[in-house]
Amino acid sequence: MKSPICEMLGIDFPLLAFSHCRDVVAAVSKAGGFGVFGATGHTPESIEVELAWIDAHCGGKPYGLDVLIPENLVTGGAKGLTSRGLAEKIPQGHRDFVDDLLSRNGVTPSPRNERPAGEPAKDSAPPFDPTNALELLEVAFRHPIKLIANALGVPPKAMLDMGKKHGVPVAALVGAKEHAIRQVEAGVDILVVQGGEAGGHCGEVSTLVLVPEVLNALKAIGAKTPVLAAGGIMNGRQMAGCMAMGAAGVWTGSVWLATTESETSEIFREKMVAATSRDTVRSKGRTGKPSRQLKSGWTQAWDGPDSPGALPMPYQTLISERALLAIEKSAATGNAAARDMVTYFVGQGVGLVDQVKSAGQVVQEFKEDFVAAYEDMTALFD
Amino acid sequence: MKSPICEMLGIDFPLLAFSHCRDVVAAVSKAGGFGVFGATGHTPESIEVELAWIDAHCGGKPYGLDVLIPENLVTGGAKGLTSRGLAEKIPQGHRDFVDDLLSRNGVTPSPRNERPAGEPAKDSAPPFDPTNALELLEVAFRHPIKLIANALGVPPKAMLDMGKKHGVPVAALVGAKEHAIRQVEAGVDILVVQGGEAGGHCGEVSTLVLVPEVLNALKAIGAKTPVLAAGGIMNGRQMAGCMAMGAAGVWTGSVWLATTESETSEIFREKMVAATSRDTVRSKGRTGKPSRQLKSGWTQAWDGPDSPGALPMPYQTLISERALLAIEKSAATGNAAARDMVTYFVGQGVGLVDQVKSAGQVVQEFKEDFVAAYEDMTALFD
Repeated sequence: MKSPICEMLGIDFPLLAFSHCRDVVAAVSKAGGFGVFGATGHTPESIEVELAWIDAHCGGKPYGLDVLIPENLVTGGAKGLTSRGLAEKIPQGHRDFVDDLLSRNGVTPSPRNERPAGEPAKDSAPPFDPTNALELLEVAFRHPIKLIANALGVPPKAMLDMGKKHGVPVAALVGAKEHAIRQVEAGVDILVVQGGEAGGHCGEVSTLVLVPEVLNALKAIGAKTPVLAAGGIMNGRQMAGCMAMGAAGVWTGSVWLATTESETSEIFREKMVAATSRDTVRSKGRTGKPSRQLKSGWTQAWDGPDSPGALPMPYQTLISERALLAIEKSAATGNAAARDMVTYFVGQGVGLVDQVKSAGQVVQEFKEDFVAAYEDMTALFD
Repeated sequence: MKSPICEMLGIDFPLLAFSHCRDVVAAVSKAGGFGVFGATGHTPESIEVELAWIDAHCGGKPYGLDVLIPENLVTGGAKGLTSRGLAEKIPQGHRDFVDDLLSRNGVTPSPRNERPAGEPAKDSAPPFDPTNALELLEVAFRHPIKLIANALGVPPKAMLDMGKKHGVPVAALVGAKEHAIRQVEAGVDILVVQGGEAGGHCGEVSTLVLVPEVLNALKAIGAKTPVLAAGGIMNGRQMAGCMAMGAAGVWTGSVWLATTESETSEIFREKMVAATSRDTVRSKGRTGKPSRQLKSGWTQAWDGPDSPGALPMPYQTLISERALLAIEKSAATGNAAARDMVTYFVGQGVGLVDQVKSAGQVVQEFKEDFVAAYEDMTALFD
């Protein structure tokens, strides 16, 4: 397929798949998409292990790496702090709120020294730490990565310089026209334009509106930065629709959470299949910034009248990841109240998931649906 | 163009345009789209005048009529009540809130006997009155209308029967999968599947997700009801995108508010051109149900900490329409505070409006952009 994204990334089908799971990344790239590994929570040591595994399993196909470096972080300047160090700063009222929520629902809190899901070491770097993220990138460039992405604001100059030095494009995620212009002016090579229906951190403007709005804004400043549409995209017909609007490809996330390879629990995947598009909520209760996730007893508690309110990033992540790990464990033993609280980042597209499939099959279906959409368009003019 | 909607409505290009302005309806139909006249606020007498005007100006092209009949209305059963009768039931606290808001901003309240915008007679039928809506339809069927639509829940059986009797398809607007199924089971001929980015009454799920979700649900029950995508659609590329996803056409609204023919004020059109997609809000402060409108001093007041809260439908409409009429008048005399409060129903697509054009030109550009989108898709496979 002829698209600037295909040329930049060395692929034939501009379907990018964000995942925290190395198995998904390798499977998508192998099947002809482009896997992007979410590195948040990793140390330089653990990322080396993950990328070596991907290299051995992706059939020599290209893949990328995604980091989360926020532009503003309350821990900014607090160098040398670890997750454990930060966790000690969480207010007692918030600890009590979580302890009470867990105990009322029959969930035993995780021991202090147990690592939350996705966090690789007992006393790792804190989440969203810029220094750690840049170290991860240094390690990553020892592998044949073809894209680096930042999903939380303008990438630091050091990241942009790294991309340039290695000839690897730098992508950045935006949820508003103004942010898109700022990213392009900073030197970003690819914009991931993500609508408010997306899972995880997101704005309020829908993909269908935001993508053309950003394309118009880029045109107005004479920028030719290719745009990947993101937010709500779960199949090849939606991908065709976004490319008809002018996107050079798509960036997807939620759809891979329902694959057999995914890091998600079986319980969460069952909840995905059962959910409609109205079963998600955009809430600060997971990371401290608005992020879309599956509605559950957990999200309701944080958004409810007794909530102490979300802590700023990264404290809310620290408190919620540990609790959600305990909730998942309890749910797995058959605790129905815990099962009700199980949640994860997921977009409104969860309403389009009707079964769990392999990642390779999802890529194949994207291709088939894309072609079917194009053929239907052609038939309109018969 | 080959689409079930084109066959049902006798048109070549499945672009439906909802408008409260007869000039827009006639201009769109004449240019090859399909105008749908929003009849809310009209009496049987005034609708006769409007439709006769459309007949004389649409060049013999087909058009339709849209009514708002909610499934649940707090005035249900209060037959014979007029707008004035209902207005007397508005709590004093709410009157005081509005009076104070207006006076603080230098706006003189409208005299009691002045009709609010869009309300045709001094003591007309109350808004959202089912009996009145059915009388309007009786009058409408003396004209060559080709579609009747209800934009607020399942149409009453009498409306569905009328459509059947006259051989005119009945459309209904839905914002959730479950509603779509209920509408199809009730016998609706066309579904307008409207995402949360839409202006006016809307749900929370985006167009990009809701359209395929409804199409999947229809397929699962073996229904072949054609779907019009709605919400955020302002140009032919988005229209092509929605049809690539499987929609049989599109239903549009906000884009016509920025046309020279529109009923909107010059001030509101200037605000549309200046707005980005983030300048709308989904609020109960206009009608009592969540509806998307341009953010302004008015919406901020109703959504703010001192708000008495929105009244249920139709009371909130009665109190807000009268005040907004006074606000528009004051803004037109140069009152900057009043200008700041000017608002109207509009979707996130307002961020795609960069100038005011004629309705006919908008239709023409939709066609050109649609073809351009298709050609770009074709070029992907070169």
